[in-house]
Amino acid sequence: MSKIARIALGQFNPCLGDIMGNIEKIKDFINTAKDYKADIIAFPELAITGYPPEDLLLRPQFIDDNINALMSLARNVDDIIAIVGFVDSSDDIYNALAVIHKKEIIHRYHKIFLPTYSVFDEDRYFKAGNSCPIIKTNDFSFGVNICEDIWHPNGPSYWQSLSGAELIININASPFYAGKSDFKKKMLCTRANDYLVYIAHVNSFGGQDELVFDGGSMIIDCGGNIIAEARRFDEDLLIADIDLGDVYNKRLHDPRRRKRNAFNTLYPIETILINNKSISRKKPRINIVPVQTQCSIEEEIYNALVIGTRDYVKKNSFQKVCIGLSGGIDSSLTAKIAVDALGADNVLGVLMPSRFTSQESIEDANELAQRLKIKSIELSIMDIFDAYLSTLSKVFENLKTDLTEENLQARIRGNILMALSNKFNYLVLTTGNKSELSVGYATLYGDMAGGFAVLKDLSKTMVYKICHWINDSSGQIVIPKRVLTKEPTAELRENQKDSDSLPPYDELDIIIEFYIEQDRTISEIIDLSKINPNTVIKTIKMIDQSEYKRRQSPPGVKISQRAFGRDRRYPITNRYHKISDRTENLTKSSGKGW
Amino acid sequence: MSKIARIALGQFNPCLGDIMGNIEKIKDFINTAKDYKADIIAFPELAITGYPPEDLLLRPQFIDDNINALMSLARNVDDIIAIVGFVDSSDDIYNALAVIHKKEIIHRYHKIFLPTYSVFDEDRYFKAGNSCPIIKTNDFSFGVNICEDIWHPNGPSYWQSLSGAELIININASPFYAGKSDFKKKMLCTRANDYLVYIAHVNSFGGQDELVFDGGSMIIDCGGNIIAEARRFDEDLLIADIDLGDVYNKRLHDPRRRKRNAFNTLYPIETILINNKSISRKKPRINIVPVQTQCSIEEEIYNALVIGTRDYVKKNSFQKVCIGLSGGIDSSLTAKIAVDALGADNVLGVLMPSRFTSQESIEDANELAQRLKIKSIELSIMDIFDAYLSTLSKVFENLKTDLTEENLQARIRGNILMALSNKFNYLVLTTGNKSELSVGYATLYGDMAGGFAVLKDLSKTMVYKICHWINDSSGQIVIPKRVLTKEPTAELRENQKDSDSLPPYDELDIIIEFYIEQDRTISEIIDLSKINPNTVIKTIKMIDQSEYKRRQSPPGVKISQRAFGRDRRYPITNRYHKISDRTENLTKSSGKGW
Repeated sequence: MSKIARIALGQFNPCLGDIMGNIEKIKDFINTAKDYKADIIAFPELAITGYPPEDLLLRPQFIDDNINALMSLARNVDDIIAIVGFVDSSDDIYNALAVIHKKEIIHRYHKIFLPTYSVFDEDRYFKAGNSCPIIKTNDFSFGVNICEDIWHPNGPSYWQSLSGAELIININASPFYAGKSDFKKKMLCTRANDYLVYIAHVNSFGGQDELVFDGGSMIIDCGGNIIAEARRFDEDLLIADIDLGDVYNKRLHDPRRRKRNAFNTLYPIETILINNKSISRKKPRINIVPVQTQCSIEEEIYNALVIGTRDYVKKNSFQKVCIGLSGGIDSSLTAKIAVDALGADNVLGVLMPSRFTSQESIEDANELAQRLKIKSIELSIMDIFDAYLSTLSKVFENLKTDLTEENLQARIRGNILMALSNKFNYLVLTTGNKSELSVGYATLYGDMAGGFAVLKDLSKTMVYKICHWINDSSGQIVIPKRVLTKEPTAELRENQKDSDSLPPYDELDIIIEFYIEQDRTISEIIDLSKINPNTVIKTIKMIDQSEYKRRQSPPGVKISQRAFGRDRRYPITNRYHKISDRTENLTKSSGKGW
Repeated sequence: MSKIARIALGQFNPCLGDIMGNIEKIKDFINTAKDYKADIIAFPELAITGYPPEDLLLRPQFIDDNINALMSLARNVDDIIAIVGFVDSSDDIYNALAVIHKKEIIHRYHKIFLPTYSVFDEDRYFKAGNSCPIIKTNDFSFGVNICEDIWHPNGPSYWQSLSGAELIININASPFYAGKSDFKKKMLCTRANDYLVYIAHVNSFGGQDELVFDGGSMIIDCGGNIIAEARRFDEDLLIADIDLGDVYNKRLHDPRRRKRNAFNTLYPIETILINNKSISRKKPRINIVPVQTQCSIEEEIYNALVIGTRDYVKKNSFQKVCIGLSGGIDSSLTAKIAVDALGADNVLGVLMPSRFTSQESIEDANELAQRLKIKSIELSIMDIFDAYLSTLSKVFENLKTDLTEENLQARIRGNILMALSNKFNYLVLTTGNKSELSVGYATLYGDMAGGFAVLKDLSKTMVYKICHWINDSSGQIVIPKRVLTKEPTAELRENQKDSDSLPPYDELDIIIEFYIEQDRTISEIIDLSKINPNTVIKTIKMIDQSEYKRRQSPPGVKISQRAFGRDRRYPITNRYHKISDRTENLTKSSGKGW
């Protein structure tokens, strides 16, 4: 017997802390869903406050404001069941969702599994919930839960399904990393099939400091097939009709479920009744949104970089950015991302040549600016550099030129970019990548100076891949050809090459992957990578000794499973260097090269 | 009946990650305690690894190394019961302690209450323990537990005492903040009296990034009196004889304890037996260490600043620091702290006058350098500043002088200090205080450039108090008189005063106390402080808008209950500004003054 429910998922871009702004967006989505005669609309985790609010959660006023906003929203919700993430407060505070029906909050669900790992700190703030009722409308039964709850196989979705829920509505603020989307889909499809239940998974969208929420909300049938998907990397209102009659049929044919029920210690759980209008059956069915084709890893990373950059700039009320253009691949990619995030008119390229800058570099930077149609200016750092050398000449008398002079140049550039920022209200985008930041091949207050580090979590290898993808997929040359082929150089001394100080990037990036993302030991890395042991040891020493630089880095988009920042929390003072000589100085130089 | 136990508390300074170095120190302390014929010696929480190891705990090799080190230590422990904090690994990893006797680990206790608040993240790493046995020697019974466990009135100490423990050994890595020591003493004395039990509380000592562990280990009798205390702000081995016969007597006289036992659901808990040599009774009693007199708040803060600075510099293998001397109070205090931390020979003062620097400032800076007996050099920033202005002249044509030029000067100074750091291996100490950092009255990559921000968590009001205390307590002028009396100025433009941009520091610091440390609302602050509402609103707006600067600040010593850094985790992208105009730009300037 057919039992149609019309489900809407409100995948919107909340702005953290802008409670009234978020409420307005939620209302707009509800109104549209009502126009489409949806039975239920669900919004992301902490939709009212934005995610993650961090220590704003320790401010009583913030909690009150969010609850008052929820109450005012509830008074506007009629003719639809709305499910909205918020911070609940009773005996303690909870990561919660409200089920709103006929202007009343008929249920407050409290997240049961609080993630405290990776970028998450929920045990710092919330008490865990301990009940997971099911809600019975005139037509069908559903359970609600929040994000992490569905990652536990024996979690609330399991108990709710066993207790008769035909649909699980799982609301999320699930941050992007490359490849997570596929991983998550597999898990959700398995859950739907294990529990013989429909799953409606709504995710947040947008950038928040280092995190990007990539949307991709979806509905999965009780056989574990994705039947409808919202856009990724955009706001979207996904509406689909699902036939919950399937669930009854499927369950009759799967006696394993009865055995689970017999083994079940929690069952039966509470049931909440909703007397709704059964509008679903009276309306024509909506065609289900076709399932999206999968995008390449380069495409999803690129989209995350654009969204993360756009939202950081705009949500912090900047319009324009400036970028130091060196003619190299990192600044080229950063500029391209900025153009797609903000428009060419809002991006300024700044060439800052020194006596070590080649003619080719200037040509390449200018070609890039032309191809991107961005304005560029050229400011030589030579006179300023000479003034520093002259001021320091007495102190530095009879000493060899070394890293100091290299860092000086990088810092003059940082200072010029900040001066433009101060004078014209540009946000400075830095251009360093994860490979450089890992080994400290970057100058603090120099090329690390700026508001947002776009490529912070992107290996050099991936920088190349993405630039090739940009040129290939657009069918034209965006990143100049020579930028893709010439050897990387910081041009801070005569004939300098990155390879003077670093292993080849393909080796470096493998070591970083094993050491940073997989926490492998030196000997495992040597065995697995087949890279020269001395190279491995030297590289890991550099990584260990650069934590102090990373601590003062600007934020940047999380792309990998283990980004620097909230995600990898290391002490600076740390003598756990298995391979280094304990008596040796912590490398103090902040320069490109040691 | 008298029942003497000789207790030793090994309050040492572990170096994070230096597992073998820590083991050597532990062995030294054990040998000394054996010379004194102690029955038991206890070491701080995570003594083997140092605290907090942060994401080193996610490296399997790190866990293995710490366990192997514990095993090698155990093989050396005889004729004494040693209690040592380490990371245990069985079904999961635990914040643990080992009870070692006759070369064997006879018990592994797992911390039950894992703090996940303030600077603590233990739920990120550890599984919580769930049992708290008591240990019975030939002479007496004791219970062991770890730090946070004793802060819970109904925690393991309670159950262990009810089950017969006469002594609780509680091992700690309890980070300093001003006033915490007194607070902790009250709590521990109350616990001892509530449970009718002796408490031996051993704390760690030393600096670790932003944290200082202040020692002050103590023994409290079963009437709630402190009977012995170790030194604060130093390593110490505290040895004392305690008469556990008192416990039996006290308990006979307190029938409330029996009622608790009847109400008790956990009781009885497991008992572990130790067959030891009862050496205590055969030796002459040791005189108990006299209880220390209390030190002033200024003294304890000053000590924490010195220890925090010394350990950050030395544990990161630097010997020398350089400091920009402006002739102002912040740089004067920073230099004084550096001298006490590292010795005058290891401190370089750098005067960097501009056209706005007064003769008085130069005199004051020179007087300070003379009084502290530190070397100083003078490097004018004028030529470099002119070179910047000339390079930027075309871009800045027809524009008014503003914050940009002020920031440029601060950044030239930052660059010069970093050049000295690079060339001569100085660690740069920054001089900004908490009042400035709160409202963003500091220049990113300028005066904020450096390795360690000594005064980061010290309000301007407290900077003055401490400077007066230094002069008063030393009976001589250390901080020049005029430094204490003249009006604060950044000297980045003609006749500039801090008060042009900021409220008076006494008002500013009250607002910061209410807003940062107490999370109060604007209207509460206006009511409580009686400060002009516009001043309160303007100040809080500045605080809210400066998070991006704080994120790139170097670490500094935690002094208050709520320090910036690990302790107050705020989003940068945050529209929750109750009082600001949402459409207004986030203040983008990084300058002193807006």
